[in-house]
Amino acid sequence: MEFDFQEIVKKISCVSEEDLTQAQKHLDSLTKPPGSLGRLEELGRRYAAIKGGVRPRVRKKAVCVFAADHGVAQQGVSAFPAEVTPQMVLNFLKGGAAINVLARHFNTEVVVVDMGVNFNFGEVPNLLDRKIAMGTGDLSLGPSMTRAQAEKAIRVGMELAHEATERGVDILGTGDMGIANTTASAAVIAGLTQRSVKEITGRGTGIDDETLQKKIDVVEKALRINQPDTNDPLEVLAKVGGFEIAGICGFILGSAESRTPVVIDGVISGAGALIAHRLNPAAGDYMFMSHRSREPAHRVVLEQLQQEALFDFGMRLGEGTGAVIGMNLLEAGVKIFSEMATFENAGVSGKGVSEK
Amino acid sequence: MEFDFQEIVKKISCVSEEDLTQAQKHLDSLTKPPGSLGRLEELGRRYAAIKGGVRPRVRKKAVCVFAADHGVAQQGVSAFPAEVTPQMVLNFLKGGAAINVLARHFNTEVVVVDMGVNFNFGEVPNLLDRKIAMGTGDLSLGPSMTRAQAEKAIRVGMELAHEATERGVDILGTGDMGIANTTASAAVIAGLTQRSVKEITGRGTGIDDETLQKKIDVVEKALRINQPDTNDPLEVLAKVGGFEIAGICGFILGSAESRTPVVIDGVISGAGALIAHRLNPAAGDYMFMSHRSREPAHRVVLEQLQQEALFDFGMRLGEGTGAVIGMNLLEAGVKIFSEMATFENAGVSGKGVSEK
Repeated sequence: MEFDFQEIVKKISCVSEEDLTQAQKHLDSLTKPPGSLGRLEELGRRYAAIKGGVRPRVRKKAVCVFAADHGVAQQGVSAFPAEVTPQMVLNFLKGGAAINVLARHFNTEVVVVDMGVNFNFGEVPNLLDRKIAMGTGDLSLGPSMTRAQAEKAIRVGMELAHEATERGVDILGTGDMGIANTTASAAVIAGLTQRSVKEITGRGTGIDDETLQKKIDVVEKALRINQPDTNDPLEVLAKVGGFEIAGICGFILGSAESRTPVVIDGVISGAGALIAHRLNPAAGDYMFMSHRSREPAHRVVLEQLQQEALFDFGMRLGEGTGAVIGMNLLEAGVKIFSEMATFENAGVSGKGVSEK
Repeated sequence: MEFDFQEIVKKISCVSEEDLTQAQKHLDSLTKPPGSLGRLEELGRRYAAIKGGVRPRVRKKAVCVFAADHGVAQQGVSAFPAEVTPQMVLNFLKGGAAINVLARHFNTEVVVVDMGVNFNFGEVPNLLDRKIAMGTGDLSLGPSMTRAQAEKAIRVGMELAHEATERGVDILGTGDMGIANTTASAAVIAGLTQRSVKEITGRGTGIDDETLQKKIDVVEKALRINQPDTNDPLEVLAKVGGFEIAGICGFILGSAESRTPVVIDGVISGAGALIAHRLNPAAGDYMFMSHRSREPAHRVVLEQLQQEALFDFGMRLGEGTGAVIGMNLLEAGVKIFSEMATFENAGVSGKGVSEK
């Protein structure tokens, strides 16, 4: 099945203000002081408005981990060697990585997708082979990928979102794996926002000062050499992005088009989210930002999307580790909405109403 | 069984630095950049150091909701009438309150204790009757309770903590219900810290400006009339506290003495935690602060305990709603500690080690 991705992007529509107001009205009838559950209420309200129905439920949750390699890793911008990408993919499949542990804890399915890892996995159970190429080109020397490759990767993400929603997944989450992908993310976010590269480039997996300076130079060079048009998100993605970022972007767009809430992980997912938002701002209504990453570029993403992260644990791992926590909190907000007693049916006196 | 509570308080000892260092060493062997899971790692480290063992587990989690009435409610300091306390207790027992919904979601047992609700429940299944009196005295007119009552309530809390740990509960949590108990909490926290009453008194369930001014006046009057000795935490508790605050204080002390992590809810639990900490600062090593409440007094508690809250959702409900979220996150941190693969056993290259 082939999607025309631009057609799908056009179909995304905003969440209705009326549905949000209706949801708020229900929340205020529940046995708690109005607003006293703060952001949990906000989560429940938005989910209810997106999904509709009097008592929305969450059937299944799934996080999709998009893995890909980056030619720019050869510039020595990461604390880890590039072979860690396929090694970690195998770790995901064996269930030993942080995302597996957290997803089991939070009762969330993990879908692992090879978008372009520089390794021949052969036939591996539970690994979805959607390889576009054996890693991207080195973005500091030329474009990461062609526009056609970027579109293809977006379509893969959309298809995965549609497949998940069709089998009853009600909350989707994004994750990533790819050595050097904070470099590509910084380049995408700088390319889209014209923010200072120095300001937004971070330490990723934990690089030292010297490597950080090299990374900044690499991102600056990438933007200078590729000259991506800041008003063309697809071009920015193709020239300085990565296959997993493109996949995540498509996944978010596919979720929004399917009217399914999608919880966004950290900075790599944030780069994908920002592209999706530029392609159609209505997609933002379906995005739930989970944690605030320690990567400085992530703050820029949050500003641009005009959303606040739900929590800040000083995390900077990726894989979807922040997303699965956020998905579980979103589910908690949905249950508050759907399972709490009302003042009326619990026989509890309302605010300021004394029966004495 | 009668406890000498001061004997138990003396037995509480600090978590060992060596155990914390050992736990950190294990965390750094796991397949993630060191420190990249931020506060989740901190949670796992502290739990491992408290509980010991190579791969600590969490068998059961339980939140204890301490309910009591406050004579000061007659001053009109809350947005809700006093009869809401027993009504909400019945709502807890029927499973319709926010704490029930969240506890079910997070697989946590809810224990509901009547510490002194001004209502005769008779025989009600699942309600623990530990009633000290039909509510406290009005703290703005005289002492809330006698010193003997405060000690008795502390002993009740200790017993409940010991009972829970004996049946395999590995993570305890605190919760509260009591109309006007943010007033008592503000008085306790001001009494212990000498902070300005105006600065720390908040809107509780959502009172208007006029009621807030009345509440501030009431707390100031309570401290003026009762003159609690700031260096005698038990006196502060007895003169301006509440039965649920005393129960929570005892529960925390009992947890610490049993070397069991205890997750603290918002400002009412925070008042209990602050008293426990003053009685023996080593108890702080077993406390895990969950959310940052919107009540201003809670910030003072966090400062005094030298702990940061884990998250800030703008919540101000109490009942243990913040605690159960925190307990689940603590459990996630424990699983990260115990279930993740190491670099060695997953065959993943470490930081800066290229095999290429």
